[in-house]
Amino acid sequence: MKKLINEKENFLGDMLDGLKFHDKQVDVIEDTVVVRKKKKTKGAAIVSGGGSGHEPAHAGYVAQGMLDAAVCGEVFTSPTPDKVLAAIKHVDNGDGVLLVIKNYAGDVMNFEMAQEMAETEGHKVATVIVRDDVTIENKEQRRGVAGTVLVHKYAGYLAEENTSLDQIKEKVDEMMYSLYSIGMAVQPCMVPTTGDYGFDLGDDEMEIGIGIHGEKGIYREKITTVDVIADRLLDELFKHSESDNFILMINGMGGTPDSELNIVTKYVMASLEKRNKKVSKLLVGDYMTALDMQGFSLTVVDDNDELTTALNAPTESKYF
Amino acid sequence: MKKLINEKENFLGDMLDGLKFHDKQVDVIEDTVVVRKKKKTKGAAIVSGGGSGHEPAHAGYVAQGMLDAAVCGEVFTSPTPDKVLAAIKHVDNGDGVLLVIKNYAGDVMNFEMAQEMAETEGHKVATVIVRDDVTIENKEQRRGVAGTVLVHKYAGYLAEENTSLDQIKEKVDEMMYSLYSIGMAVQPCMVPTTGDYGFDLGDDEMEIGIGIHGEKGIYREKITTVDVIADRLLDELFKHSESDNFILMINGMGGTPDSELNIVTKYVMASLEKRNKKVSKLLVGDYMTALDMQGFSLTVVDDNDELTTALNAPTESKYF
Repeated sequence: MKKLINEKENFLGDMLDGLKFHDKQVDVIEDTVVVRKKKKTKGAAIVSGGGSGHEPAHAGYVAQGMLDAAVCGEVFTSPTPDKVLAAIKHVDNGDGVLLVIKNYAGDVMNFEMAQEMAETEGHKVATVIVRDDVTIENKEQRRGVAGTVLVHKYAGYLAEENTSLDQIKEKVDEMMYSLYSIGMAVQPCMVPTTGDYGFDLGDDEMEIGIGIHGEKGIYREKITTVDVIADRLLDELFKHSESDNFILMINGMGGTPDSELNIVTKYVMASLEKRNKKVSKLLVGDYMTALDMQGFSLTVVDDNDELTTALNAPTESKYF
Repeated sequence: MKKLINEKENFLGDMLDGLKFHDKQVDVIEDTVVVRKKKKTKGAAIVSGGGSGHEPAHAGYVAQGMLDAAVCGEVFTSPTPDKVLAAIKHVDNGDGVLLVIKNYAGDVMNFEMAQEMAETEGHKVATVIVRDDVTIENKEQRRGVAGTVLVHKYAGYLAEENTSLDQIKEKVDEMMYSLYSIGMAVQPCMVPTTGDYGFDLGDDEMEIGIGIHGEKGIYREKITTVDVIADRLLDELFKHSESDNFILMINGMGGTPDSELNIVTKYVMASLEKRNKKVSKLLVGDYMTALDMQGFSLTVVDDNDELTTALNAPTESKYF
């Protein structure tokens, strides 16, 4: 298997041990819960997490201005409720905890179970569920993908501003009405625990609408030039987004070189210009990946002054 | 070809057009020379560059505290002397220009030709040639690889401190006595202009000592666990480096996911501990890549107070 790993059973533990060597802001408690060394003494705490394989999400965003804790499951596997509970208990300073959950059955079940357990112990806990992936027809079943990182940043900023837990939840829920993402791949990811690819693609094929766990897309076709690919993805996005003025994130899937992500950026921006769509803020980089997948995703969200301020606010995370 | 590109002939131009959309600090002059919008008005200017395909090097380091210009050639191809000359003329404010050149025949020839041309026009120009890749036996022929990025940061810091051009050259030349790198790959890179891989590797093979242009390594063997790979690379490095206290850069080759780079970090640090070697500063990330190659390189350089201060100094480059 072409993976830079030791024992595949220790993938998560090894990864977090390595992270601690160069991310001096974080500690790991309970083996898999990444927390800030400098614990916040006031303001709502923001907790997220989920299966691993999406690095730098979520552990890389544990930092001043973003997350207070990331609960890390095994690769593409939800963390258990007891770990989420441990995170809540660790970060709660009395001002309550917001759980940012990507919409997958396991994550929702385990984070909500932890919420209930924490509430019986007297913690105030709110949840927001991110469902930004437009490739699923049924809105309630939409998966949480790269847009989740914008939620982390917005919620983290609001908490720094001493916004109450209830208000943060309200504002983030509001933001999510206009949060839409779609992704594509030219190479699937190889899952280190199995050595298998999430799906198989022919040498001349690409997959439109993939998920971040190697889920297949909505259609597959011959690989073509990036200008056409950009048009395809934007066509799908604007079946949902009605915005003419928005924040855009162009997200690499983990194995996509910077050079290609920049080429993607050029043609996405050109396609938007033809559509008379205005990008008020642009983020380009690897934010929410699928292991070594080669491809990219686009995320849009309506611009507003507070959100723009939040995204521009400093954070000690080197990954945002 | 599994590449997110449009016309392969426009790879470089498209990439720089894309970069400008999200790196608001830079401008592109003469089609391929990336310069700071906010031109420095005093202090030596630092110029680097070379073939493309190593992103974020070199254009991503054009920023306050690092480079004043990056001269970008086509993929894995040296830029021409006239472009280097244009860069020198653009950035020189009278305090002279340092050219940081990776040791490849084309780069050295073209940058030195530009130096001569600039000098006849009255510019003061110095050069430093980076030769950090230990896989070449003959020291003079050693290639410049990831260590070049540390040179950018050191030189950029010294220039900000108003160190004279001569002194910067002297200090950087001194630093290079202890600068050593070695790389490995589990997957070669695909060159977008040809659709070919730099070399072919079997499904169970890895290559030790690769170059950043898809050059083959010094030996090939069955892929093994990261602890063993880390030992191998460090064995090679410490045939050259005599340091017990150094700065370490663990560099992803472009297609390596963050998760694996963190696992690499754990086992490199464990191997160093067994050797009683002390890392005074650790950098982990994609700094000098080879397109979408999967693998990593290690770079060491002797610690000293000024170098550590330089590496810790702020820069507006989001890639360092």
